[in-house]
Amino acid sequence: MAESRNLVVAQSGGPTNVINSSLRGVIEAARDFANVGTVYGARHGIEGVLKEDLLDLTAQCPEEVALLRYTPVAGSIGTCRYKIRAHQQEDFERVIEVFKAHNVGYFLYNGGNDSMDTANKVAELAQQRGLELVAVGIPKTIDNDVGDSEFKLIDHTPGYGSTAKYWMHMVQNANEENKGTCPADPVLVMQAMGRRIGFIPAAARLADPGREMPLQIYLAESPCSLEQLADNVNDQLKQCGRCVVVISEGFDVGEIGEIVDSFGHTSFGSSQITVSQIVVNYLNQVGLAAKGAARGNVPGTDQRHSMAYASAVDLDEAYAVGQKALELAATGQSGYMATILRDEGAIYNVRYDKVPLADVANSERMFPAPWITASGCDVTDEFVRYAKPLIGNEMVGLPMIDGRQRLTRFEPLFAEKKLADYVPQADRET
Amino acid sequence: MAESRNLVVAQSGGPTNVINSSLRGVIEAARDFANVGTVYGARHGIEGVLKEDLLDLTAQCPEEVALLRYTPVAGSIGTCRYKIRAHQQEDFERVIEVFKAHNVGYFLYNGGNDSMDTANKVAELAQQRGLELVAVGIPKTIDNDVGDSEFKLIDHTPGYGSTAKYWMHMVQNANEENKGTCPADPVLVMQAMGRRIGFIPAAARLADPGREMPLQIYLAESPCSLEQLADNVNDQLKQCGRCVVVISEGFDVGEIGEIVDSFGHTSFGSSQITVSQIVVNYLNQVGLAAKGAARGNVPGTDQRHSMAYASAVDLDEAYAVGQKALELAATGQSGYMATILRDEGAIYNVRYDKVPLADVANSERMFPAPWITASGCDVTDEFVRYAKPLIGNEMVGLPMIDGRQRLTRFEPLFAEKKLADYVPQADRET
Repeated sequence: MAESRNLVVAQSGGPTNVINSSLRGVIEAARDFANVGTVYGARHGIEGVLKEDLLDLTAQCPEEVALLRYTPVAGSIGTCRYKIRAHQQEDFERVIEVFKAHNVGYFLYNGGNDSMDTANKVAELAQQRGLELVAVGIPKTIDNDVGDSEFKLIDHTPGYGSTAKYWMHMVQNANEENKGTCPADPVLVMQAMGRRIGFIPAAARLADPGREMPLQIYLAESPCSLEQLADNVNDQLKQCGRCVVVISEGFDVGEIGEIVDSFGHTSFGSSQITVSQIVVNYLNQVGLAAKGAARGNVPGTDQRHSMAYASAVDLDEAYAVGQKALELAATGQSGYMATILRDEGAIYNVRYDKVPLADVANSERMFPAPWITASGCDVTDEFVRYAKPLIGNEMVGLPMIDGRQRLTRFEPLFAEKKLADYVPQADRET
Repeated sequence: MAESRNLVVAQSGGPTNVINSSLRGVIEAARDFANVGTVYGARHGIEGVLKEDLLDLTAQCPEEVALLRYTPVAGSIGTCRYKIRAHQQEDFERVIEVFKAHNVGYFLYNGGNDSMDTANKVAELAQQRGLELVAVGIPKTIDNDVGDSEFKLIDHTPGYGSTAKYWMHMVQNANEENKGTCPADPVLVMQAMGRRIGFIPAAARLADPGREMPLQIYLAESPCSLEQLADNVNDQLKQCGRCVVVISEGFDVGEIGEIVDSFGHTSFGSSQITVSQIVVNYLNQVGLAAKGAARGNVPGTDQRHSMAYASAVDLDEAYAVGQKALELAATGQSGYMATILRDEGAIYNVRYDKVPLADVANSERMFPAPWITASGCDVTDEFVRYAKPLIGNEMVGLPMIDGRQRLTRFEPLFAEKKLADYVPQADRET
C-alpha cells in the first residue's frame, strides 16, 4: 500500500448554504482511501494555510460531520477573501513550506474562478519545489459565475440552486404580502445579490413561471434609467394596483458608495446606500406609490444562509462534488476542478466530472443575453427551464434541539504548529 | 332554531405569517354553528366593508381553506391601513348600512389596538341604529404590542411567535456567516421590525440563550449614541474579532426620512435611509471594521412572511384564537376580543378567553424595562423564558407542488352588491 499523505481543504470567498455539504463530501469520501491520511481544514481559507492554522477534521465526531448538511455558510472552518496575488511569491512559498511540514500531499480548494487560479499556481509551484502535491478545485458560488457562459466547464455552481430557491420562496411570499397590503403598500422592492451577474435576481421568475404576478426583474445586464423603471412600475400599478420589483445589487442607479474588497470585488453589502433604497426613494419622491409608499427589503447575506430554504438538489450535488474532488485527489489527478455537467434531454440529470483548473481560471461566465426578454425587465422561459431543476421540489427539514437549529460543532483539534509564525504578505501591507 | 345571520371577517394593519390561520379558524368553526350563515371576508379590511367588497368564504373549497395554514400574510382577503377616524361618522353609518343589506349579524375584526377600537365603535353604533350585531375582535401583530404591559389582557399576540422564530433562525445562521467570513466581514448589522417596541429585536437572544455569540441587541427603548454603539462593537471586535448587531428599525439614530401612514404610524419600511444603513455607514466611516467592512441586512417584510420559519405553536394558537372569536360571536358575546392567556407554572400552556374590546382599545403595551440588561444592549433571561415557548421546537413543513409553495387559491365568489357605490371618507380627502 502506498504511503498515506495528509490533505488540506480550504474555502474561499462568499459562503453558500451548501458549502459545508461539499466539505462533508470530502471528509466522508476520504475514509475510503487509505492513501489519504488526516483531512485538515484550513481555518479561513488560504490564510489558515499561511498561518498553519489547521483543524483536524478526520478526528471529529462523525455525527458532527454529518450535520454539516444542515449547517449553513462557512462557520465550521471559515472562508476568506484573501487572494495571493501573482507578486506575492513569499506567500506561495509559505504554502509549500506548510504543506511539506505537515506531510500534505493533497490540496482541495473550494471557491470561484480566482480560487481555481490559486489552486493551479500552488500545484505548479509544488512541482517546481519537488513537492508531490495533488491540487484539485471544488466549485462554489451563489452567483453561478464560475466557468464559462456556454455551461461547458460547469452547468451550475453548488450554492446557486439554494439561493435560487430562496428567491422563489421570497417572491412567492412577498407577492402574497404585496397582494394583501397593496392599497397602502403597493410597491415592494427587493434587492438580490449576485454582483453584476443576473442569475440570482433572475431566479425570482421561478416563483411565477406562468407570469401571473405583477413582477418586474431588473438585472445589471439590462440597464435602464430610474425614469424608465418608474414608468414600468407605473404601468403595472395602472394595470393591477401593485408591483413587486426584484433588482440586482449591481444594477446601475448611480453612485452607491461601495467598498472594494481585497479581491478587487465590489462589496455591495457595505455600500453607503443600496440600489433598493435609491429605487424606493425615487418612487416615493415621484409619488408613484400613490397614497401609500414603496418599501424595500435588502435580505443581504440571508439569501446564502437561510437554511430552511436550501435546495435538497443543491445540497446533494454539493456533497457529490466534494466526493468527486476527493476521488480526483486520491487518484492523483492534479490540476482539475470537480464539476457538474448536465445530461442532454428533458429529464434533469447530472454527472460529476473534471475540467482543467487553468481552463476555469481563464474563463468568465456571463448571464446569457438571450435569456433576457425584450422588455428588459424579465427573463425567458429558457432560463426557467435551466434553473427550475436546481431548486428541487421539497423543503429540507432542519434538525432542531431545544428551540434552535442543531448545527455542527467541531472540537478545536488543531494540528501542532511546526514552523515559525508567519504574517501573510497582504496583511503586512495594511 | 334561531334565524341564521351572516358573518363578516376583516383584517387590518400589517399582516403576519399566521393571520390566515386565524381566518381558517373562523371559517372552519363557523361550520358548527347553525345560526352563522355565510362567512364573508371583507377585501382589504374595513375598506372592503365600505365598498361592499365581500368574498364568500363559506363556498370555498375546504382544501383551500385548510391551506391557509401554509399561506402567509394577508394575500387571501387582504388587509388595510384604513382607520375610520372618530369624525368620519359617514363611514361608520355606511358599515351599518352594508351589514343590514347583507343580513350581517356578526362582525369579526382582526387587528391591533386601533382595530379593537373600530370594532367596539361599530358594535355601539349598531346598537344605536337597531342592528343586532355581535362584534368580536381577533388579536394580531408581529410587534406583540396589543394589550397591556402586564400581559393580563393578552399574553402575546398571534404573529409574534413566528417573527420571533424567524429571528432565532436569522441570528443563528447569520452568526455562522459572521464566524465564517469574519476576517473580511467582521461586523454584520441586521434591522428588525417592531416600530419602537422591542419584542422583535429582543427575539434575537433566542438564538443564543447561553450568550456564546458576539451578539448585541439594540432596542429603541434603550437608546444610545452612535459613538457608544461603535464603542460597544469595537470592544466586541477586540474580544473575538467579530460582532453581530441586531437593531430595531425604530432605534434613534437621527433623521431617517420616514413616511407616516394613515394610522399615524411611521412606515419604517419606506424611510429614505434605514437605521441599519446609518449604523453600517458610521462603523465603516470610523474604520472599526478594520481591513474589511461592516455590512447590513434589512429583511423587511420577509420577517412576517417567511413561511418556512413560522412557528407551529403560533400557527396553532392563531387558529384557536380564530375559533374562539367565532364561538364568542356565535354565542352572542359582543364587545369582546378573543385572547390568549398563559397558565402559571413552568410548563407552557395557554387558555383561550375573552377580554372587553374597550379595555384593549384603551391599553398600550410596552417592552418591560426590567427585561433590558444593565448594558443596554441585551435582554434578560426572563425575556427568554417568556418568548421561548412561543417559537416551539419544530419546523413547519410546507406543501410544495411543481417546485413552488402550494398556497391557498380562493375562487372569486363575491357577494352581490346591493347598495350604491361608496367612496370611503379618507379616500375623498386624498
